[in-house]
Amino acid sequence: MAKLILETPRGTRDFPPNEKIIRDKVIYQIKEIFEIYGFSPLETPTFEKLEILEAKFGAGENSDAISEIYRFKDQGNRDLGLRYEFTFALARFVGQNPQLKLPFKRYQIGKVFRDGPIKSGRYREFYQCDIDVVGVSSVLADAESLAVVRDVFKKLKLETIIEVNDRKLLTEIIKYSGIEDKKATQVIVSIDKLKKIRIKGVKEELIEKQIPKDKIEKLLSLLEEIEKGTNAEKLKSLKKVLGETEGLKEIDELLGYLKDFSVEVEFSPSLARGLGYYTGPIFEVFLKDQSLMGGSIAGGGRWDQMIGKYIGNENQNYSATGLSFGIEPIMDIILKRDGTTRQTVTDLLVIPIKTQKEAIKVTQELRKRGLKVQVDLLERSVSKNIEYADKLGIPYVGFLGEDEIKQNKIKIRNMETGKEELLDIDKVKL
Amino acid sequence: MAKLILETPRGTRDFPPNEKIIRDKVIYQIKEIFEIYGFSPLETPTFEKLEILEAKFGAGENSDAISEIYRFKDQGNRDLGLRYEFTFALARFVGQNPQLKLPFKRYQIGKVFRDGPIKSGRYREFYQCDIDVVGVSSVLADAESLAVVRDVFKKLKLETIIEVNDRKLLTEIIKYSGIEDKKATQVIVSIDKLKKIRIKGVKEELIEKQIPKDKIEKLLSLLEEIEKGTNAEKLKSLKKVLGETEGLKEIDELLGYLKDFSVEVEFSPSLARGLGYYTGPIFEVFLKDQSLMGGSIAGGGRWDQMIGKYIGNENQNYSATGLSFGIEPIMDIILKRDGTTRQTVTDLLVIPIKTQKEAIKVTQELRKRGLKVQVDLLERSVSKNIEYADKLGIPYVGFLGEDEIKQNKIKIRNMETGKEELLDIDKVKL
Repeated sequence: MAKLILETPRGTRDFPPNEKIIRDKVIYQIKEIFEIYGFSPLETPTFEKLEILEAKFGAGENSDAISEIYRFKDQGNRDLGLRYEFTFALARFVGQNPQLKLPFKRYQIGKVFRDGPIKSGRYREFYQCDIDVVGVSSVLADAESLAVVRDVFKKLKLETIIEVNDRKLLTEIIKYSGIEDKKATQVIVSIDKLKKIRIKGVKEELIEKQIPKDKIEKLLSLLEEIEKGTNAEKLKSLKKVLGETEGLKEIDELLGYLKDFSVEVEFSPSLARGLGYYTGPIFEVFLKDQSLMGGSIAGGGRWDQMIGKYIGNENQNYSATGLSFGIEPIMDIILKRDGTTRQTVTDLLVIPIKTQKEAIKVTQELRKRGLKVQVDLLERSVSKNIEYADKLGIPYVGFLGEDEIKQNKIKIRNMETGKEELLDIDKVKL
Repeated sequence: MAKLILETPRGTRDFPPNEKIIRDKVIYQIKEIFEIYGFSPLETPTFEKLEILEAKFGAGENSDAISEIYRFKDQGNRDLGLRYEFTFALARFVGQNPQLKLPFKRYQIGKVFRDGPIKSGRYREFYQCDIDVVGVSSVLADAESLAVVRDVFKKLKLETIIEVNDRKLLTEIIKYSGIEDKKATQVIVSIDKLKKIRIKGVKEELIEKQIPKDKIEKLLSLLEEIEKGTNAEKLKSLKKVLGETEGLKEIDELLGYLKDFSVEVEFSPSLARGLGYYTGPIFEVFLKDQSLMGGSIAGGGRWDQMIGKYIGNENQNYSATGLSFGIEPIMDIILKRDGTTRQTVTDLLVIPIKTQKEAIKVTQELRKRGLKVQVDLLERSVSKNIEYADKLGIPYVGFLGEDEIKQNKIKIRNMETGKEELLDIDKVKL
């Protein structure tokens, strides 16, 4: 047989124990917060019927993702595809289960797949982690979701800025500038870059996109005016110009609820985000320390129309709002910050010194008490065992000679400090 | 647009919250035991290069699984396939990481995929859950793995019987009967059915397989003799007939170590199991109460040669032993036993009575203390809220009227007993 080339498929990777241990811990911490807020887990299949994945709703901003679906057929010649996100699966699930009691608060954490170009830090298989509330049209649900965001990042010890805007408001601003509706999407794409390319850059882009100059001026002078200041100041400026619009009312209401939840946000009228299915408030979360990670680490918004479209009845009200946490950038930051010194979950390696049979019994007693223990299975020398513990980052070793066995004790060595202690078996704490 | 048919692909299903909550709990309990024994998590990609999946080692018993691979290509025209088990991925990982310190004890839990026929209780996407130890040739590692099995099922409150046998011994028994080596696999397939079709059925099958009658007689009279009795009696009978063989020595050693771990097993010389890559002890676990589930709920064995074959260097010693837990049958049993009354993780629904703003603050205080709380987001009536809690199986509701707010208290109702208690906010325990 030809020798196999042992590697993972392009754009995928293994998570060896040192990384998987941290990944599991992070996900566990995030789940804890979700559940405290009453979000329950849902799990959908890894692949879906292709027609479900390819259904285009909203402004078709998913066309990239759709062109990047891993497609295949089953033996019955059915067209299938690996999931590339969770929102469509939630919409399908809700549509398929009309008996669901609303509000339906669910989270889903798992791998999604995109057969796209591989840049640094981009993979073809990666984790996503979503929360959504279905069945609440009040932006109270949006505010609560942002409280989840605040608590998640507090738990992960990451200082963040939550930016909020509203899809309706964006449309109103563009309309106010006199720009045609059909150009709105293109304009919003440019506005979204305001922080990066500044007013000057946005202006150049809009000229290229053949927006009339007077309208560009009107748009940009408004955006310039509201770029700085407190949330209240920005709202006031906008109200002066636009009047009492639906978008401004919604943002105002959202900011009010956020105060009840003690969540601090930055109202960012130029925040655009994936426009496809969003219908109201939109959010994006950034690290305060942009040097660690410039891009967003969570984002989302309200998507009131998609489920009705899936069901084929747009009049049915399935309002929904939610957020996706970027597990991959979050893991990158945490791995950079905390490192990975542990190659194993093991807290203690029991080293028998001519006491193998007894060492098994002692190990089992320690395990019964919930300690994470390995016992030497290779009858290695003491020094080989210590080397193994050291290489794997096991923090403690325990020596079991005949003396220790007789006294029902074990000599525990702290691998970092080198300090040793002779302890009763039933009193070992790590 | 044509109306979408909202369904999961054939052979797959959603796990709605009521099931997913129990599934997560079971997996968490299993992980806890694995980690107590020093097994660390590994995660490999959901799909692999097709040549890795299709590599045939051992007796080719994986040919069914290989014909059931979901195959696809990426945009670079690379041949890929969804994983159908974890063992090959572990072999690839170990081969790819020669720096790994041995023993390498890992577990992996996740979904695998088989595009095969759908019988009752068989799915095309299902969970697998494996532990393996790489780098220990002593059957001490096999004994320790069976201690994990014992502890896992104890934790899940399932009474089981662990059957053990040895691949070497099976070969020796067949050789002793005078049956040709090339017929061994066919014979073993029949022997494996001994419990089900009894001696008579096995005899008929072997005649059909054109095994000479005198050899069948020799084989079956030996199997009949060792079918009953204690483990020691079976071993003694076999020793009398076969002499001191390698297989018997190995079983003897394994049973010795199992005593050190206080693990009870049944030595079952007719246990055959998937023969492909097994090289030594083999195990299978059944429920004591066969009426709940007749088939095996865990199984495994020693597979010393596969990693070397993957690496393309069979002389390199990568002994390995492991087990796979049947999460799907285990879940079926547990769901049947415990039912699913909870549609949500939520323990308490806070019902504001004209106190919405204050209710948010109280809810946040309760959440800060780790309680799993929802607060009414729809300004529903009290009765609608109680109905919601009832339907979802939320065990407690908490009423917050103006009186309660003034006293910094909440009136908690136990939904099962109907009992109500007025409690200080900072003293609520559920």
